[in-house]
Amino acid sequence: MHFLDRFRQGELRLTRIEAFSDGVFAIVVTLLVLELKVPALKDHGSVSELAHALYELVPKFVSWLISFIIVCKFWLNHHHVLGLARHADYGMVWLNSIFLMGQAFIPFPTAMVGEYPANPLAVSAFGAMFALNTLLFLALQAYVVRRLIKPELAAAQDPHGILKGFIGPASYLVGAGLAWVSVHAAFIVYALTPLFYITPPQWRGTRK
Amino acid sequence: MHFLDRFRQGELRLTRIEAFSDGVFAIVVTLLVLELKVPALKDHGSVSELAHALYELVPKFVSWLISFIIVCKFWLNHHHVLGLARHADYGMVWLNSIFLMGQAFIPFPTAMVGEYPANPLAVSAFGAMFALNTLLFLALQAYVVRRLIKPELAAAQDPHGILKGFIGPASYLVGAGLAWVSVHAAFIVYALTPLFYITPPQWRGTRK
Amino acid sequence: MHFLDRFRQGELRLTRIEAFSDGVFAIVVTLLVLELKVPALKDHGSVSELAHALYELVPKFVSWLISFIIVCKFWLNHHHVLGLARHADYGMVWLNSIFLMGQAFIPFPTAMVGEYPANPLAVSAFGAMFALNTLLFLALQAYVVRRLIKPELAAAQDPHGILKGFIGPASYLVGAGLAWVSVHAAFIVYALTPLFYITPPQWRGTRK
Amino acid sequence: MHFLDRFRQGELRLTRIEAFSDGVFAIVVTLLVLELKVPALKDHGSVSELAHALYELVPKFVSWLISFIIVCKFWLNHHHVLGLARHADYGMVWLNSIFLMGQAFIPFPTAMVGEYPANPLAVSAFGAMFALNTLLFLALQAYVVRRLIKPELAAAQDPHGILKGFIGPASYLVGAGLAWVSVHAAFIVYALTPLFYITPPQWRGTRK
Repeated sequence: MHFLDRFRQGELRLTRIEAFSDGVFAIVVTLLVLELKVPALKDHGSVSELAHALYELVPKFVSWLISFIIVCKFWLNHHHVLGLARHADYGMVWLNSIFLMGQAFIPFPTAMVGEYPANPLAVSAFGAMFALNTLLFLALQAYVVRRLIKPELAAAQDPHGILKGFIGPASYLVGAGLAWVSVHAAFIVYALTPLFYITPPQWRGTRK
Repeated sequence: MHFLDRFRQGELRLTRIEAFSDGVFAIVVTLLVLELKVPALKDHGSVSELAHALYELVPKFVSWLISFIIVCKFWLNHHHVLGLARHADYGMVWLNSIFLMGQAFIPFPTAMVGEYPANPLAVSAFGAMFALNTLLFLALQAYVVRRLIKPELAAAQDPHGILKGFIGPASYLVGAGLAWVSVHAAFIVYALTPLFYITPPQWRGTRK
Repeated sequence: MHFLDRFRQGELRLTRIEAFSDGVFAIVVTLLVLELKVPALKDHGSVSELAHALYELVPKFVSWLISFIIVCKFWLNHHHVLGLARHADYGMVWLNSIFLMGQAFIPFPTAMVGEYPANPLAVSAFGAMFALNTLLFLALQAYVVRRLIKPELAAAQDPHGILKGFIGPASYLVGAGLAWVSVHAAFIVYALTPLFYITPPQWRGTRK
Repeated sequence: MHFLDRFRQGELRLTRIEAFSDGVFAIVVTLLVLELKVPALKDHGSVSELAHALYELVPKFVSWLISFIIVCKFWLNHHHVLGLARHADYGMVWLNSIFLMGQAFIPFPTAMVGEYPANPLAVSAFGAMFALNTLLFLALQAYVVRRLIKPELAAAQDPHGILKGFIGPASYLVGAGLAWVSVHAAFIVYALTPLFYITPPQWRGTRK
């Protein structure tokens, strides 16, 4: 038997893959807030000192907000793709695990860009990481659509669906490039990119 | 097709939304305790020094307790509202995600008020955050009741249900305002507010 | 309607209560390990310095081990009690939430006793916390057995079951008292107590 | 009744064991990233200083990657073994809990080896921990296969399955021994070992 064929074996229950994935998603979005550390004040009762310290946390708050929305978008798309599959095989489980590895990594670049919002490398890495995560997701989606799709849903697939999916990584990479010119422009691109994905695409609108 | 109509498409399984939400709720209540740091002692074996250090942790313990109860109350109400829905659409998923973002944020103001319990800004922000979270919940509830309610439950809805829900945010905001006069009064209002919600409202008493 | 009667209303799905509780249990056992901090070494490559530093972590490792086993025991008993209930009501949900609050608190005294294993107050608080947690569990169990038990299981209940449950808190309190005489004796009592509960009691052996 | 027989009693639902286990797995893989701390920079905007600091994080990134893949492999094997069982008993629950204890411990040696990648003790402990975890898993697997297997799957079991499973711990122990000669050789063995397990064994290929 060919080595790659072995990954196409096995029939795994989708429910546990969903439970494991939902756990990772839930922890990632919640861990993100741990980067928002309570500032140290000299005068514990001073309103102006606390207000000033909170103002300095604004970049961390913004990066937290962007990451939270993007992880929720990934969760929503993941939900959609797993709904297409009739069952799972080992290949899908590993693609899913590598995708989740990318999700679990998100708190690190989020914390880094929140700490150094004016550092082009930090801002660029933030976008490059989301581009990579979207590519990992597209690999999972392509595998499910080609090999594991429920027969009744196969016809409803947009043949250009995967192709359209590349708009996401391309947009994040544009932001990652812009970071070297203007970090503000990069943040705007990062915040706008998930907005293209918050509504279901036409071909998803068909009732299951 | 109208842009907003796109959010009304899609039919998502409630089970995964519940699993993701339950994960976030569970992590939020458990992370809250991470703010209770073991105090540093000069004499590791000294009972009196440890007792004194623990006494100074009382504000953190109280803020942990209030936040824990309030998150449990949100979980209970969330459980109730998702039980009303016949299925989910994209609009509901996004309202749910934004509501969970508010829940995931709770550890930060909780830690801040535990650190600076005498700072009016910290105490006021604690209440304002709960007011905002209740409003996010009411938006989710209103969306489900208007657009996704199971037909057999529609008649049992209290027409004033959403209106009554505004008592919560109003009460938290009263506490947030009181914080500028007396932080003790604010804490009492925060602790009492969830008590109005721990029993099911009349209209929920009807058997499903 | 009587105030307390309102808690007896509502019919909540056990599945979400289980999902929320399992999330809290899973996070508590996993967070416990975060107290095992990597020691700071002067000579990064020194085997003897690292071995010495790891040896000093032994009290933290032991307290982690005891807490892990005890939380698993609570999870197992919780699993058993929820299996007795035919459905949930608001009273049960709140007793469950308060019980989970006790579970979520466990990392704090565990970290404290790991940091100050020779401090009688820290060792005593460790046991007192487990006594309190067992009492919270017994309250939940008593409520389920009296008000929500599946009719077919009611006859199989040991009438002395709740009474026997008090052996646990009593044993933990003996340990908490012993801590003031000998912390080693206290640790032995804490480690032995859950062993009384790892096998199912006779009346649980009946097939469901 | 014999003491050990008591563990063979009870009939526990696999769904809650899976939910608890999936929670622990999900948290372990996500907590691993918390060791990747944002480096402290003197010049917040300096690209070269950040690039240099990130380069120094490479050992932490590599240890995170190896641990993530290995935990996913454990999750996959756990999924497989629980799918063999017709129900759970107390013995299985405790073997599962001890196995999860090993999983929850993984972040500690992972952080240690990421901090001191040139220290033979740290590198050796990393491998010894994975060897121990694999043995704990084999104990769970052996218990399920001997006592709880679904009758229709019993015939399909490879009689040498458990024996083959010992290749894993043996390989990790070889790595742990190699660490005292060359830490690089040890890392290569650790990274290669899970690759033997990423495809389903022949006897698992049979359709359920």
